Amino acid sequence: MHLSRYFLPVLRDTPKEAEIVSHQLMLRAAMIKQSAAGIYSWLPLGLRVLKKIEGIVREEQNRAGAIEILMPTIQSADLWRESGRYEAYGKEMLRIVDRHERDMLFGPTAEEVVTAIFRDSVRSYKDLPKNLYNIQWKFRDEIRPRFGVMRGREFLMKDAYSFDLTKDDARATYQRMFAAYLRTFARMGLKSVPMKADTGPIGGDLSHEFIILAETGESEVFLHKDLLHEQVPAADTDFFGDLSGIVERWTSRYAATDEIHDAARFEKEVPEADRVTARGIEVGHIFYFGTKYSAAMGAKVQGPDGQLVTPEMGSYGVGVSRLAGAIIEASHDANGIIWPVPVAPFEVGLVNLRSGDAATDAACADLYRKLAAAGIEVFYDDTDERAGAKFSTMDLIGLPFQLIVGPKGVKSGEVEIKARAGGERETLATEAGLNHVIAAVQAQRSLV
Amino acid sequence: MHLSRYFLPVLRDTPKEAEIVSHQLMLRAAMIKQSAAGIYSWLPLGLRVLKKIEGIVREEQNRAGAIEILMPTIQSADLWRESGRYEAYGKEMLRIVDRHERDMLFGPTAEEVVTAIFRDSVRSYKDLPKNLYNIQWKFRDEIRPRFGVMRGREFLMKDAYSFDLTKDDARATYQRMFAAYLRTFARMGLKSVPMKADTGPIGGDLSHEFIILAETGESEVFLHKDLLHEQVPAADTDFFGDLSGIVERWTSRYAATDEIHDAARFEKEVPEADRVTARGIEVGHIFYFGTKYSAAMGAKVQGPDGQLVTPEMGSYGVGVSRLAGAIIEASHDANGIIWPVPVAPFEVGLVNLRSGDAATDAACADLYRKLAAAGIEVFYDDTDERAGAKFSTMDLIGLPFQLIVGPKGVKSGEVEIKARAGGERETLATEAGLNHVIAAVQAQRSLV
Repeated sequence: MHLSRYFLPVLRDTPKEAEIVSHQLMLRAAMIKQSAAGIYSWLPLGLRVLKKIEGIVREEQNRAGAIEILMPTIQSADLWRESGRYEAYGKEMLRIVDRHERDMLFGPTAEEVVTAIFRDSVRSYKDLPKNLYNIQWKFRDEIRPRFGVMRGREFLMKDAYSFDLTKDDARATYQRMFAAYLRTFARMGLKSVPMKADTGPIGGDLSHEFIILAETGESEVFLHKDLLHEQVPAADTDFFGDLSGIVERWTSRYAATDEIHDAARFEKEVPEADRVTARGIEVGHIFYFGTKYSAAMGAKVQGPDGQLVTPEMGSYGVGVSRLAGAIIEASHDANGIIWPVPVAPFEVGLVNLRSGDAATDAACADLYRKLAAAGIEVFYDDTDERAGAKFSTMDLIGLPFQLIVGPKGVKSGEVEIKARAGGERETLATEAGLNHVIAAVQAQRSLV
Repeated sequence: MHLSRYFLPVLRDTPKEAEIVSHQLMLRAAMIKQSAAGIYSWLPLGLRVLKKIEGIVREEQNRAGAIEILMPTIQSADLWRESGRYEAYGKEMLRIVDRHERDMLFGPTAEEVVTAIFRDSVRSYKDLPKNLYNIQWKFRDEIRPRFGVMRGREFLMKDAYSFDLTKDDARATYQRMFAAYLRTFARMGLKSVPMKADTGPIGGDLSHEFIILAETGESEVFLHKDLLHEQVPAADTDFFGDLSGIVERWTSRYAATDEIHDAARFEKEVPEADRVTARGIEVGHIFYFGTKYSAAMGAKVQGPDGQLVTPEMGSYGVGVSRLAGAIIEASHDANGIIWPVPVAPFEVGLVNLRSGDAATDAACADLYRKLAAAGIEVFYDDTDERAGAKFSTMDLIGLPFQLIVGPKGVKSGEVEIKARAGGERETLATEAGLNHVIAAVQAQRSLV
């Protein structure tokens, strides 16, 4: 992509309304633009990141056997009356009356819609297990939306809903999602830790929040330090085999958000040298809730013995748009964002230090072609801005690698390379520099 | 994909509420499921088609230089008050009041949102032209939603909005979208014809509806028969060169929807033998409207001479979810859907006539592996349904090619091939049959 043909209205100054670094950087890097309180448009650079995040979430859901559907944003209140949630849900639900005076709502979640689909479509235990997910915009009418996409009103969520014949099957499905989430966040360059969450009246131990660690995280978390080095399931994990070992490894040591933190237990279970107190951001939540919705809504299948069975259900959420902010909270410096390769809007930034100079333009065009031919996503600053502004913009938008080309280097057959994360600059012969960058990008595409 | 692990609750009977064939077939083939009047969930098979359509639209928008963004579904009424449309828009607008008693709405279109983004971000003529598009869910509160996704309330639309410095530039942008639309629909296997549309108070000749021809189309259209054989712009068309020749070729002959049809002109301009009267479905609309929104909302850029200029705008819509229905209207038979390869949910259906028979299972597994290795999207019916039901389902869901494997063929080293469109069946040696299907799929992936 050539910057001259792109739409990247970066801001030099930090907008006053942005309180946290991810919000500031997303506005400055022209990733998003507020359109109403807590409601954002995604500009081209931000949308590319959002789609990469969505793509990783999708691949890991598919790998774990979940099947993608797409449910509508607008739901009928009647469905929510069946589950009893319509009256119970507070002011965070955006309630709507249509032209025929029917009560509708903008879905904050979709248990009712998916249970109705299941109820009308699935008749036999032979069709189980089923785990249906969708990646769709949701709305929660927060009283005080803030922190940009971290706590917006309209947000993109991946929500999966599982249906199993027995509690044991439901536990196996839960474990599949557990393992899938570990992979999902690790692939984005994040360190995530599952932490036990409250199960309320449902009870049991099958509810975990996935918290990623970031210095500027929203809440305090407490954990055993070995969890920071625990192994993430590999790509060739058999998701349909027994995953209880993985879950056991990740849940046997202390890890708690401040909401359920128990200082006495922490001190008793974790040797002092192993105690870590850090800041965290919730990016996922998995929850087994049994027959709460299937029973209320009358979803049943015929069991192996001919008797009707009410299926066991769970739900599994990932905050897709929130992750764009969370990754920035976990990976930035004073100059801007530092994207891990798998979620970077482009993989390499190509900086022309003298646009209009025939030799420099030709050298850049050649590098662009070669990078593109190698399958690298290149963002080419071909504008006539001064060098300082170009460097600032490149650092701000945080592409993993920069290739810097000026008239002097063109003469000497050299190119400068900068790795955004470490900031190291290196001058290499052009061909060597090109190959170096291609190899570095390729090596970092798979983090797990 | 293995059917046993998929979610494909096909219906044997035609639901009574479905009046037109695409609606009937989308319900029967388990592509969609109604969740409220005019509001549908997309089940796995339907979502795959929707994503393929979306992908083609996106590629052609990008080729023509448009830049993708994503605007929110919920918009502020204040923006619509700036353009004067909030009060003017009728009951089709879904109006919403949020918890702070602010007037909001579910966007039926996004001229206001995009003009506000432009106004706040673009300062100089040097940044023009800009054409920003998004593919996002819209809502129109139809009084009587019907015909499934063809006239639903919640629908997926690609809407692009262009900003140009001069009327001439705006015309060039319009021509780029004109050519892009011709390619877009042709790539889906559709015959589209641009037909002049009413420009209302704006005037001029820069408004066209793109109508695809289908026997069961919603309205009558009249055209010169040569338009049915007119050439679609090739992939290597220079979209930034002069496209007026293409537009001229496609607009110089008579073509009109019944809304603006002029029988006298038709008879005068078109020799009797060349007159075609057919049924059509609107799938796209492009429209140049000048400074209507930019002037009302105060969007200005600094021109080359330092004076402020109000940019010229146009908008360009494609009914993405509607196209899923429109393609079926144009391509089906008594047994079900007939998908063109580029929009088929899967490219090949593999039918195991004796699931559980070791030799047949092994032969199918081998074919599945080889097809997947060749990059073919395979849908494998590995269930224990009887053969007749399997054939019906395969015909209903309309995959372009079927590979049929039974114990007899396994013994004789043969496989049966069926092309869904023509219905021809052929028995070939297994390896030859496999290669035949792979070649046929690859040949039909690019229709333009």
